[in-house]
Amino acid sequence: MSIRVGIIGYGNLGRGVECAIKQNKDMELVAVFTRRAPETVSILTESAAICKIDDVANWQGRIDVMILCGGSATDLPVQTPEFVKMFNVVDSFDTHARIPEHFENVDKVAKENGHVGLISCGWDPGMFSLNRMYASAILVDGSDYTFWGKGVSQGHSDAIRRIEGVKDAKQYTVPVEAALAEVRTGSNPELTTRQKHTRECYVVVEEGADKARIENEIKTMPNYFADYDTTVYFISEEELKANHSGIPHGGFVIRSGKTGWNGENKHIIEYNIKLDSNPEFTASVIVAYARAVSRLAKEGQSGCKTVFDIAPAYLSQLDGAELRKTML
Amino acid sequence: MSIRVGIIGYGNLGRGVECAIKQNKDMELVAVFTRRAPETVSILTESAAICKIDDVANWQGRIDVMILCGGSATDLPVQTPEFVKMFNVVDSFDTHARIPEHFENVDKVAKENGHVGLISCGWDPGMFSLNRMYASAILVDGSDYTFWGKGVSQGHSDAIRRIEGVKDAKQYTVPVEAALAEVRTGSNPELTTRQKHTRECYVVVEEGADKARIENEIKTMPNYFADYDTTVYFISEEELKANHSGIPHGGFVIRSGKTGWNGENKHIIEYNIKLDSNPEFTASVIVAYARAVSRLAKEGQSGCKTVFDIAPAYLSQLDGAELRKTML
Repeated sequence: MSIRVGIIGYGNLGRGVECAIKQNKDMELVAVFTRRAPETVSILTESAAICKIDDVANWQGRIDVMILCGGSATDLPVQTPEFVKMFNVVDSFDTHARIPEHFENVDKVAKENGHVGLISCGWDPGMFSLNRMYASAILVDGSDYTFWGKGVSQGHSDAIRRIEGVKDAKQYTVPVEAALAEVRTGSNPELTTRQKHTRECYVVVEEGADKARIENEIKTMPNYFADYDTTVYFISEEELKANHSGIPHGGFVIRSGKTGWNGENKHIIEYNIKLDSNPEFTASVIVAYARAVSRLAKEGQSGCKTVFDIAPAYLSQLDGAELRKTML
Repeated sequence: MSIRVGIIGYGNLGRGVECAIKQNKDMELVAVFTRRAPETVSILTESAAICKIDDVANWQGRIDVMILCGGSATDLPVQTPEFVKMFNVVDSFDTHARIPEHFENVDKVAKENGHVGLISCGWDPGMFSLNRMYASAILVDGSDYTFWGKGVSQGHSDAIRRIEGVKDAKQYTVPVEAALAEVRTGSNPELTTRQKHTRECYVVVEEGADKARIENEIKTMPNYFADYDTTVYFISEEELKANHSGIPHGGFVIRSGKTGWNGENKHIIEYNIKLDSNPEFTASVIVAYARAVSRLAKEGQSGCKTVFDIAPAYLSQLDGAELRKTML
C-alpha cells in the first residue's frame, strides 16, 4: 500500500513536493491544503484533493505523513506543533538559532499524541548538517567550512526590493573560489565573512530613479550587504525575466582534518551540491524523509526527530538485502 | 566511563585504529591481539596490553567493542563470525560481491550471542555507500558514478610485483578528469571502464631485466590492466622510497538527477575525499562507528549491521541537544 501524503501550503516548495511524490512510486499525494480559496488553486496531480487548511482535521487517519511547506518566520513555529497533534509531519524549519526551541515544542506535542515530527529537513539544515556531523565524527581533529551558492537568496532579494526606487531584484550569493581552493589544501584557514562569499545583485529600477543612491543603499545595508563585497548590476525588466527567473542554488560542506599519532596526515572530506531548483531539491530530500517518518511511525515511534536521528536505510525504497547487494 | 576497545590484527589498519582512538577522548584502547609473538610487537599506546590472538576469549567482559583489522580475502570471513560470539565487533570487509553472504554469517552468530556486529565499515564500502544511498533516495530519477583515486591500489601493486624481474612496484589508480567534468555537467554519460580511470605504475626492476617485456606484461594483464590506459614508469629503488612510500587515496561519489513535473531541472550531488593515508582515514571511520556499536549494544540491540542501519547521531561524541544546537 502506498504511503499517503498531504501537503500544507502550495507555494514553490509545495509544488516541488508534489513533483517529488510523482517520482516515488511507493507514495501518493492525497490532498493539498491551502489558505486560499480551493477553487482558485490548481495543482498538477489529478487524483489529489484541494482543501481549505481549516478542513485538515477531517483528514486524520487518511494521511500517513503531512508535509508542511510554510515559511520558517511565522508559519512553521505555529503549524508544526499544531499539526503534529493530528498527523506525522515533516517540516523544513531553517532558522538555525531557533531550532532547539522548535524541537522542544514539537517533541512535547508529538509524544503526547503518538506522532513523529521530523523538523529542519532539506539541504541546510538537512543534508549539509548530516555531512557536517558525519565528517566531524570521523575527522575529530579538524575544521568545518560551509559555503553557499552560487544561488538565489530570497531574503537578500527581498531586502533590495524594499529600497525606494527599486522595481524588482535578484540577489546571488557566490562562494569565493580562492577561499574554497585554500580550504581544499587542508591548511585550515580562518576566513572572515567577506573572504568566504560575495554578493551579486541584479536590480530593475523605476524610471528616473537615482541609481547611485540605490547602489549605495544596497552596499551599506547592515547584516545583509555591509560585510560583503557586493556588486550591483542595473538591468532591464526583460533581462531580469529572461536571465534571472530561475531559483538555482548549491553549496559546499568541507571538513579538513588530521590523523596519525602526531597528526602527521591530512584529509579532506567534501560534500557539494549544484541545483537548478532549490525548492525542488529541498522537496526531494523532504519526500525521502517522509518515507522514513512513515516507517518510524509504523514501528510505534513518536516524538520530534531530526536527520541525525534517522538511520539512512529508512529513506530508501530498497530493503536491507537489496541495499547491501547494490549500494554497499 | 570510556568505551573499551580492542584491536585484532596490528598492520597498517590496526595502527590507524590505535591513532584514531587516541583522538577520541571517550575511548580507550585496552588490548591489541596479534598472531605474532607479543614480545616481538611494539605498539604506541603505553597503557594497552599486547596479547596473543589465542587469548582473546579471556578478555570477554573487559572489551566493549573489538575492531577486526584483518584482510577481507581470508581473515574476516572466518574471524568476524568467530569473534562476534564473544564481543561486539566492527570489520572493514570490502569484497563487495560477498557482502550478502558475510552479512548472513555474522548476523546469525551475533543474534545467537546477543552481540552487535558492524561489517563493511570504512570509506568504500562505508562512507561512499552511504552517499550513494542518500543521493539515490533523494534524486530518484538519476545516475550514480563512483570514481577512485588518485590513490595506491595494493592489489594492483602486488600484481606487478609478481612479474618476473620486478623488484618492487607501486600502482596508482587515477580518475580521468574529463570524465569527472562530464559527469558534473549533469549529462548522465555512459562511461566505459577505460573512460573512467587510468593506471600509473612505478616499477623497480632487477638488474638486467627486460623492461619491454615487463611493460607489456603489465599492460596486457587481464582484469588488472588490460581494460585500462596504463602508463609504466621505471624508476630506481631510491626514487620509489623517496616519492612513493605513502598510502594516499581518495575518490568521488556523484549522483546526477532530474526533478520537476517533467524532469526539467538538473541537480548534482557530489561527495569526495582526498586522503594522505588510506588506512588512517578508514580507521577513523571505523572508530566513529565503534562508538555507535557500543551504544547500540548498550540499548540491547543485536545482529549484523551496516552503515545503512545506524542513525548518524550514534557516531558523535555530542548528545542530541548539542548536535541540534551546533551542527543542524
